Amino acid sequence: MKMSCRLRDRKEWDVRASTLARNTFNPIRDIIETLKIKPNPDIPYIALSVGDPTAFGNLQPSENIIDTICEMARLNDSRSYGPTIGHWEARQAVAEYSAHQGPVTADDVILCSGCSHAIDITLSVIADAGQNVLIPRPGYLIHKTLGEGLGIVIKYYDLLPDEDWQIDLVSLESQIDENTAAIIVNNPSNPCGSVYTKKHLKDIIEVALRNRVPIIADEIYEHFVFSKHEFTSLSSLSKDVPVITCSGVTKRFLIPGWRMGWIIIHDRNNILGKEVRKGLFSMSTRILGPNTLLQRALPRILKETPQSFFDDTMRFIENQAHLAYQELQKSPALRPIMPQGSMYMVVEIKMSLFPKFENELQFISQLCNEQSVLCIPGECFNYPNYIRLVLTVPEDILREACHRITKFCDEHMMKEKLKIPDNDIVSIVNGKSSEVSSKQQMLKNIS
Amino acid sequence: MKMSCRLRDRKEWDVRASTLARNTFNPIRDIIETLKIKPNPDIPYIALSVGDPTAFGNLQPSENIIDTICEMARLNDSRSYGPTIGHWEARQAVAEYSAHQGPVTADDVILCSGCSHAIDITLSVIADAGQNVLIPRPGYLIHKTLGEGLGIVIKYYDLLPDEDWQIDLVSLESQIDENTAAIIVNNPSNPCGSVYTKKHLKDIIEVALRNRVPIIADEIYEHFVFSKHEFTSLSSLSKDVPVITCSGVTKRFLIPGWRMGWIIIHDRNNILGKEVRKGLFSMSTRILGPNTLLQRALPRILKETPQSFFDDTMRFIENQAHLAYQELQKSPALRPIMPQGSMYMVVEIKMSLFPKFENELQFISQLCNEQSVLCIPGECFNYPNYIRLVLTVPEDILREACHRITKFCDEHMMKEKLKIPDNDIVSIVNGKSSEVSSKQQMLKNIS
Repeated sequence: MKMSCRLRDRKEWDVRASTLARNTFNPIRDIIETLKIKPNPDIPYIALSVGDPTAFGNLQPSENIIDTICEMARLNDSRSYGPTIGHWEARQAVAEYSAHQGPVTADDVILCSGCSHAIDITLSVIADAGQNVLIPRPGYLIHKTLGEGLGIVIKYYDLLPDEDWQIDLVSLESQIDENTAAIIVNNPSNPCGSVYTKKHLKDIIEVALRNRVPIIADEIYEHFVFSKHEFTSLSSLSKDVPVITCSGVTKRFLIPGWRMGWIIIHDRNNILGKEVRKGLFSMSTRILGPNTLLQRALPRILKETPQSFFDDTMRFIENQAHLAYQELQKSPALRPIMPQGSMYMVVEIKMSLFPKFENELQFISQLCNEQSVLCIPGECFNYPNYIRLVLTVPEDILREACHRITKFCDEHMMKEKLKIPDNDIVSIVNGKSSEVSSKQQMLKNIS
Repeated sequence: MKMSCRLRDRKEWDVRASTLARNTFNPIRDIIETLKIKPNPDIPYIALSVGDPTAFGNLQPSENIIDTICEMARLNDSRSYGPTIGHWEARQAVAEYSAHQGPVTADDVILCSGCSHAIDITLSVIADAGQNVLIPRPGYLIHKTLGEGLGIVIKYYDLLPDEDWQIDLVSLESQIDENTAAIIVNNPSNPCGSVYTKKHLKDIIEVALRNRVPIIADEIYEHFVFSKHEFTSLSSLSKDVPVITCSGVTKRFLIPGWRMGWIIIHDRNNILGKEVRKGLFSMSTRILGPNTLLQRALPRILKETPQSFFDDTMRFIENQAHLAYQELQKSPALRPIMPQGSMYMVVEIKMSLFPKFENELQFISQLCNEQSVLCIPGECFNYPNYIRLVLTVPEDILREACHRITKFCDEHMMKEKLKIPDNDIVSIVNGKSSEVSSKQQMLKNIS
């Protein structure tokens, strides 16, 4: 066969992965794998690491959800392709379900394959490679994984552990520059469990408005709120700042694996209208929309799931938070921080009491090797010296896990350090060393 | 509040969409929308445009699939998150189902949210922006949409309409250059319905090997083969060339909306091992894997769906192909090309008989406006003067649609052109004008 001119003359194979693939990097997986954790084979393994409320089987979705799925599976139009942004009926149901976010119509809703997909699409549209997006520290690093994969620069603003993990607004604004494409606000927060007040949300919006930066509101834990706290959707308070809200049914309806999330575009002044709205629609065409069986079931899932189901779940999680808080406080080496919502608790490890561990990574690694309890190290949230616990495991398992953690601390901490207050301890137990003036106050903080 | 230095000083909002979003562009949607087609309100609308075998409800999935879904929905572990590449059991089932592709283990399989997602992930890993990927002309343009979105340059190699749409190997090799990252081979083909012989597949592999270019085999229509033809998976013939095969259950099992597809890595010499395999895994983490309800059902869907179900579907589609072929041949203005498989038929429109239409876009637009039949114009497959019909609609509807198409041709074509052979007609009816030596032969070709 006669060949036309060939510009290629390769004797060896040289197949490289793309920059996108090489930059897409899950830090949690990598950190955990690097630790080479081996749970103690003599003790039953307890994973407090996986943010999946269904992982232990104690939390089950409402029966109506299963029934609806089975019913819909028998309908032909639950099996056909849908529009890539989702069936109108499903989008309309999401709009009604999301009325607390402000005025929303079906046209503002794009259905996605889970909230991660919603964030992936949103980031891929809102920022070009080289632009930056601000995310919280500590924060769930899917934002980093997705953003950096796309070549987006991730910058961090600080949360304030002693002020209910509110955003340090000075830190936030200081990170904004000419290349800032969006601010991600995660409320309620993973891992912190914070639930922001209206006042605080308004302050955040004010910073965004002053700098003309749109907000991506990651509200997958909307309604995951403990008693005496109230969830307010960020978009409901924004008059001028465009807000793209990402949420879904995965967590709240206890069907995370079914991958049904959505994007809601809040853009009262049509700031995103020129390109971004179209871009979001375009990006939804890439994988032709989420599972249509779920889409067809979605209106009934959203409307018919009883309030008592949600109340029961939240009551359970809140009780678990109290349990973990009480149990972990028993160790002077730990400072559990009571969450206001979500399904996580953050615990400070007073690392100066563990000189043998270089960092909390070694702490959680050894904890797992001895006590077969796995927590996520703060490193995975860009926040060393803290760990994250998942609260949705069964009560007896959580209790057992807390016992093992405090036992581990008791066995490993340098007890003499507790008796001699030094600056090192002071700075760690409180985080505000200038306020600690006496041994008494320090010990009070420890207990 | 005191603010740190602000580099940003914007009075106006200026929120742009990313390059990725602006480059992600579905040509079919755009072309169809631009046509502003209005079906004749007096005649029932028939869409022969949507590549969805379930769109009309005449083709239903096997009952065991629905039963399995309902059963699995009641199991807790069908609702939890799975590994991002998919549950091992599901991947193992895909490996067994795909044994015809060559040696495959569960480790070679990545589950995706449909075959489009499989192609999206594969393209995003195999090529960087600026590199090129070769796709067939005519060809299904999802490859173009996905590739160009990522900044990948799409180059075309020709298929030969008079040689069963085999690949023009000279054309293929001439397109390869130093920046060629992959060749996409779509077999059986959308829109052509061709099914390549082993000999031809080996020739394709030979070109890839000579140039050290990996192949992406889009085989979503595997097993969609009419009697007397045989489907061979490209990977089964490749000893040295790495082949990434994309497929899924969506079409063959008549559940397209449920979005269950996969990537299978065939790489006997570990050429992709260095980076690409890892990259494919990394990219699967972006949206945390496909729906786990489907994943849990997948082993039984793949193993228990009876052969008779597939046989019935293929017999139906083949009969439809014969029906359309016979009916459309009745018009001298049309040249239907009998497919060997898939679920489509390509029909050449002898445009010289329709001087009033500038191109086949105007033809299909007017056809729909008058006869309420919508076909996809060849423009959408980068192949003007042809149209694509979907064969999976009910028999009476296909018959009616063919009648309307031939009626439309009869009403609009310049009949006097048929009587006077000229070079224009000759070149169109045959595509090989040098071989046409007489009016007789030409008319034979026309009829």
